[in-house]
Amino acid sequence: MVSLEYLLHFIDEDAPSGDVTSEAVIPDIRCRAEIVAEQSGIIAGLCEATMLFSHYGVAAEQFAQDGQIVKAGDKLLSLYGDAKKILLVERTALNIIGRMSGIATQTREMADIIYKKNPKCRVAGTRKTCPGFRALDKKAVRLGGGEPHRGSLSDGILIKDNHLVLVPLKKAITAAKKITLYKKIEVEVETPAEALLAASAGADIILLDNMNFGQVKITLDTLMKKGLRDRVIIELSGGIGPDTLRDFAALDVDVISMGALTHTVKNFSVKLEIVPE
Amino acid sequence: MVSLEYLLHFIDEDAPSGDVTSEAVIPDIRCRAEIVAEQSGIIAGLCEATMLFSHYGVAAEQFAQDGQIVKAGDKLLSLYGDAKKILLVERTALNIIGRMSGIATQTREMADIIYKKNPKCRVAGTRKTCPGFRALDKKAVRLGGGEPHRGSLSDGILIKDNHLVLVPLKKAITAAKKITLYKKIEVEVETPAEALLAASAGADIILLDNMNFGQVKITLDTLMKKGLRDRVIIELSGGIGPDTLRDFAALDVDVISMGALTHTVKNFSVKLEIVPE
Amino acid sequence: MVSLEYLLHFIDEDAPSGDVTSEAVIPDIRCRAEIVAEQSGIIAGLCEATMLFSHYGVAAEQFAQDGQIVKAGDKLLSLYGDAKKILLVERTALNIIGRMSGIATQTREMADIIYKKNPKCRVAGTRKTCPGFRALDKKAVRLGGGEPHRGSLSDGILIKDNHLVLVPLKKAITAAKKITLYKKIEVEVETPAEALLAASAGADIILLDNMNFGQVKITLDTLMKKGLRDRVIIELSGGIGPDTLRDFAALDVDVISMGALTHTVKNFSVKLEIVPE
Amino acid sequence: MVSLEYLLHFIDEDAPSGDVTSEAVIPDIRCRAEIVAEQSGIIAGLCEATMLFSHYGVAAEQFAQDGQIVKAGDKLLSLYGDAKKILLVERTALNIIGRMSGIATQTREMADIIYKKNPKCRVAGTRKTCPGFRALDKKAVRLGGGEPHRGSLSDGILIKDNHLVLVPLKKAITAAKKITLYKKIEVEVETPAEALLAASAGADIILLDNMNFGQVKITLDTLMKKGLRDRVIIELSGGIGPDTLRDFAALDVDVISMGALTHTVKNFSVKLEIVPE
Amino acid sequence: MVSLEYLLHFIDEDAPSGDVTSEAVIPDIRCRAEIVAEQSGIIAGLCEATMLFSHYGVAAEQFAQDGQIVKAGDKLLSLYGDAKKILLVERTALNIIGRMSGIATQTREMADIIYKKNPKCRVAGTRKTCPGFRALDKKAVRLGGGEPHRGSLSDGILIKDNHLVLVPLKKAITAAKKITLYKKIEVEVETPAEALLAASAGADIILLDNMNFGQVKITLDTLMKKGLRDRVIIELSGGIGPDTLRDFAALDVDVISMGALTHTVKNFSVKLEIVPE
Amino acid sequence: MVSLEYLLHFIDEDAPSGDVTSEAVIPDIRCRAEIVAEQSGIIAGLCEATMLFSHYGVAAEQFAQDGQIVKAGDKLLSLYGDAKKILLVERTALNIIGRMSGIATQTREMADIIYKKNPKCRVAGTRKTCPGFRALDKKAVRLGGGEPHRGSLSDGILIKDNHLVLVPLKKAITAAKKITLYKKIEVEVETPAEALLAASAGADIILLDNMNFGQVKITLDTLMKKGLRDRVIIELSGGIGPDTLRDFAALDVDVISMGALTHTVKNFSVKLEIVPE
Repeated sequence: MVSLEYLLHFIDEDAPSGDVTSEAVIPDIRCRAEIVAEQSGIIAGLCEATMLFSHYGVAAEQFAQDGQIVKAGDKLLSLYGDAKKILLVERTALNIIGRMSGIATQTREMADIIYKKNPKCRVAGTRKTCPGFRALDKKAVRLGGGEPHRGSLSDGILIKDNHLVLVPLKKAITAAKKITLYKKIEVEVETPAEALLAASAGADIILLDNMNFGQVKITLDTLMKKGLRDRVIIELSGGIGPDTLRDFAALDVDVISMGALTHTVKNFSVKLEIVPE
Repeated sequence: MVSLEYLLHFIDEDAPSGDVTSEAVIPDIRCRAEIVAEQSGIIAGLCEATMLFSHYGVAAEQFAQDGQIVKAGDKLLSLYGDAKKILLVERTALNIIGRMSGIATQTREMADIIYKKNPKCRVAGTRKTCPGFRALDKKAVRLGGGEPHRGSLSDGILIKDNHLVLVPLKKAITAAKKITLYKKIEVEVETPAEALLAASAGADIILLDNMNFGQVKITLDTLMKKGLRDRVIIELSGGIGPDTLRDFAALDVDVISMGALTHTVKNFSVKLEIVPE
Repeated sequence: MVSLEYLLHFIDEDAPSGDVTSEAVIPDIRCRAEIVAEQSGIIAGLCEATMLFSHYGVAAEQFAQDGQIVKAGDKLLSLYGDAKKILLVERTALNIIGRMSGIATQTREMADIIYKKNPKCRVAGTRKTCPGFRALDKKAVRLGGGEPHRGSLSDGILIKDNHLVLVPLKKAITAAKKITLYKKIEVEVETPAEALLAASAGADIILLDNMNFGQVKITLDTLMKKGLRDRVIIELSGGIGPDTLRDFAALDVDVISMGALTHTVKNFSVKLEIVPE
Repeated sequence: MVSLEYLLHFIDEDAPSGDVTSEAVIPDIRCRAEIVAEQSGIIAGLCEATMLFSHYGVAAEQFAQDGQIVKAGDKLLSLYGDAKKILLVERTALNIIGRMSGIATQTREMADIIYKKNPKCRVAGTRKTCPGFRALDKKAVRLGGGEPHRGSLSDGILIKDNHLVLVPLKKAITAAKKITLYKKIEVEVETPAEALLAASAGADIILLDNMNFGQVKITLDTLMKKGLRDRVIIELSGGIGPDTLRDFAALDVDVISMGALTHTVKNFSVKLEIVPE
Repeated sequence: MVSLEYLLHFIDEDAPSGDVTSEAVIPDIRCRAEIVAEQSGIIAGLCEATMLFSHYGVAAEQFAQDGQIVKAGDKLLSLYGDAKKILLVERTALNIIGRMSGIATQTREMADIIYKKNPKCRVAGTRKTCPGFRALDKKAVRLGGGEPHRGSLSDGILIKDNHLVLVPLKKAITAAKKITLYKKIEVEVETPAEALLAASAGADIILLDNMNFGQVKITLDTLMKKGLRDRVIIELSGGIGPDTLRDFAALDVDVISMGALTHTVKNFSVKLEIVPE
Repeated sequence: MVSLEYLLHFIDEDAPSGDVTSEAVIPDIRCRAEIVAEQSGIIAGLCEATMLFSHYGVAAEQFAQDGQIVKAGDKLLSLYGDAKKILLVERTALNIIGRMSGIATQTREMADIIYKKNPKCRVAGTRKTCPGFRALDKKAVRLGGGEPHRGSLSDGILIKDNHLVLVPLKKAITAAKKITLYKKIEVEVETPAEALLAASAGADIILLDNMNFGQVKITLDTLMKKGLRDRVIIELSGGIGPDTLRDFAALDVDVISMGALTHTVKNFSVKLEIVPE
């Protein structure tokens, strides 16, 4: 999904003119090393770590697949190659695995909560990702069982509150539908009335933003009564935390998107250890 | 600290081929907008946001300076320009501010805890940053009152556990000192004995990694007795959370580095609102 | 839609180490110049040309807007600035305008033919663009009144014949729907039966590829009978030239996509003339 | 002639964040595929296609060499590898082959017409290429038997009409000759008198721009009489189409350059087919 | 001649993540500074320095033009702006001026020696430049009154000794002439016989490589006798130092190329001084 | 130390659109070639040359290691591969080896002079390198036995004369120490009094700039008397040439830095020869 050049850019960030420590103290030897999980969760980033080590001539064998559950102590990657190359890639690889697995693990937790209440409802990410790491944040959401949502402003139509300050909702939907047959039209609304208007105007997806439980319920009922519920996808977003998630998930909604999946990430703990001969 | 090109790369990530929504629905008008804090904390990233908006011809006036304390409701940036350009930059700017301010705020909290116990001790970051965002993660640590630590493998000598599997501690320090007069030599150790050895061998900074309270104390006492305490900087790292921080900070240490400052970040909440005419 | 850096890359291609002729023969003088249409059609690329000249400090005034009809002899851009800079940008600007206007003009011709037969039907482009110029090829299609279609493999789902050699149609649609709520699912089919299967399986868009007039008609009738016609968008593609376009457009189809819009382009003739003092 | 990085840029354009369709529907399997000509002509771009597929680990065997004549149905490339990688490269490869072969085929047609009338005369391209694809447009001209002409403003001296508005012809030639011993001096002229002046002033190549048949003849006669014909290369350009080409080619000229070779290209039809097991 | 991006790459090299010293110690103040020559010679690089300072908002006024003679103590550039920006660009600007002026000064010295002996003979550079700085090395040669020669392998034909190990001289010239009407054909030879062969075969420029004085003389006489001298340009190269230059220049040769102009450069001494208020 | 991409940029500079000569005259054959030293000295750049040739599929065997002494006639690299690829890389490889070996050789000469007088004193480079080649200039200094010194403005604190025009010395040192525990603070001074002040204020390294022999001696004596000599590293710089180096080296100083190591380089002579079959 991501090119080698994309990943090498990270090495360049961590070693713009080489690794002064290893160049000073490490001889020209080959060694073994292992990357090991220090907690349980959904692992991600092993594929990217493998691409990086391989590029530097370090043989990398994966002992788990991205998206799988691992537990503390599990060996994830076994490495063999030039010691300096292993040390060059170490921190970048761990940072990628740590962040991606943190995202995947949190996503799975949310997905599981939702699934228990409503098997037809999904969890989705947002564009609230770390700049420079978007593609991998999105991939991690998918590996955790979530839906990445729009990759960028270029690949999806989402008419938001700030658009609607400048253009009336109906006019915006009409303009969007005129510009493309190929993309779904998503509209963010804040009241049941707006939701109804959006659905009537032909929106494909309606994002109920920051509505409380009661408002969401009214919106769903209204759409149902008007016979519009099945013609739209209903997404919830805004102010839904782990505590309120259960309640919202129990409603007849299709997807709940959460910025926290990628903007407030708990690092997944993982380490690399050189294996003494 | 960071070039315009560095920041434009993030816009390119969020809009590789333009913003399909705004291009479809927003007319060619100019408008006002505001970026407003939704919580209190240390603000960061306003300088970068201003660079981005300015590049796109959007006039940006700052109402707070990076590193300052702000509170919920504070206006941070006032914008005026082409509506489509404001919307193009919106999410990237908010993501930058959200992450950097989250880091700065957390850093300040840790720095304050430490300061109350030991005004001479500092908090430092690590290289556990988000790949692609290192420079801004580091800047945010500084804005929060922390010390960024090494920017990369290229600009500091730090002999770590994995080096010491391959080379004896004393030999490594000697090799590092031979390679450079200009850089301090930092060594990571796990026991008081290693710390003593490192100090004797001429290390400038000793990183006590994952030691418990008692071990740190023994190490400090030993160095003191040998008359080596003042010749080295003592850094603690590993497994120190907000709860144990107070105790460690009370010891005679110089700096405590915490990976969590940048690897486990709570997003700082901030929003952009188009101002209706 | 396209960044300045995107356009400067083209200058770099045409002058990797400067313009040896102008540097040898042209003094440091400022002069006027005009870009003039040499034929009639839909003009495009003036916005890009203006960005380029402006970047080099050449004042550029547009006398037409991209997407407008112009005729031979119309002044399009008036320029004033350093003669060497005007000459540096000349060919790149003309190449951009020539190709984009050629595409826009041809697109408008096709759109007009279709419109006369079926005002609800549109013309669309494909990914058969000139590598390195995709974004501007797509923009030119839009300026000509066409729909650009997918910008890349990253921003739309289109299950094509080669996918269907490897995965059964129904399984492919199911997999695609599972992966995303946010994107429409388009499927390329070659027979009425496949079209029916695709519609039943939940495809949003059905691309009838290389079907003859009779097959298209049967497909539309079948879908109508099964009550599926209104739930899908019908796209035609393959082997439709200016001659057969009229017939196909008269059918109840939503969009006709034509690779030739961007892969077989007749350059729009335009020239730049330095104006003698 | 072109680097791998140059070609990978095109993949990046067609898949900035992966291929969503194949990632959703195609399993991890290896398969065979073939690229087959759908018309006859001069093939080009196979070398570039092979570089791309090889980079992604797809074994590619060429059944024709760039520059050869192929006919409809001819197998051009046989591929074997990861199905998703084949599909990732497919469109980019076909776009490269389609455009380059279109150029090569058209160039050969023009070269053949010229050759029959005047075996010593060649056909040449211009800088009227698609921005971002210049190097391959030029290579295609050569593969079709044409001369690419200047690669860019940096690598050849060509004093054109717009230069001559600003500097007198003789002065321009003198300035150019002074700046370089190493490059030929080419001058574009519009009258027999200018041609004579250019030849007398030491131009190496004279480009007779937009002259009609009679004017070209007078120019050649004049140069002959003055004993200057053999000291210059005579190039014709401007307004020469397939119909008038025969007449002009019959004259004693050295090269005829045609913008249409690269600015008005008919795509060469070629397809990629996955081979069912 | 060189783009801003080309120059900014050098700033990035000298400050990949900012200027830690100035950021630590310099307040936000504006100041004046001057760049002053510390020796006499031909100045070069002021244009590039001005571009860089201007880009960072530092007003730069030039007191000399590139290519002029300056003497020790001459003010070259006067600067006013943000102190940190002046210090950021300082070393890069001085390195550019120092190297380019060193090259221009040495080139002028050689050109003067040659001119006194043979006003029709020029001095030329080679491709023996510092990698990454080619364009500016070449520009400096021109500013010193020399001819830059080929800019790269892409923009000139030069058949050298290593080619002639693989292909016979006459065959090589024929192949080169067949490939292009637009470029001069230069051939490197080592004996009078080869020179004669090259001239007969139609070479435009003959490079007499590493010949001693007698051999060059014989070559010139032979060509003269055969009536070929005026049809070729004669270049000398190899082993010609300041001492032997006078003798060789006195011969009837057109150009003498010297690798040392760019591969063995004496830095031109220049300094930047902040002016106290 | 330097990435492949770093080196490929140099090939791109020397062949932006291929090698027109070899493409015209050299057949598709494989051949042997050798790179041979034409003088004695410290060789450097073989590692980089090998990376480049290998990238192009040319087998390269090294007969010497970077940093070793070689003499005229020594075979350095033996090559086997596609003749056109060898010729493509030839000049870039020779330019790298020529410059790096020139720097390494000169550095070793200076280091040897110093060592004979004062085995504890080292020679160091500066930031006076060729823009675009910094990393390799620095590496060459190390291979010659010198210390590279700061790699860039980002990786070391050095308070220079121009800083001190704007901020008092003591205040600058205090500010620098506050900003970082991890980097040594170096200060450039011009008088013994300033040196004393710097040492008292806690500078780690004191650079005595442009002091004469007497002043250096006084400075050292003063520091010794105050008991500060051992707490600082003393660096000399400015106006020290090969002639005065002996005298300065005999003093109790730690390091002498010389801009000439990299700004005034004598190319090391080396050639590539295709080996006839």
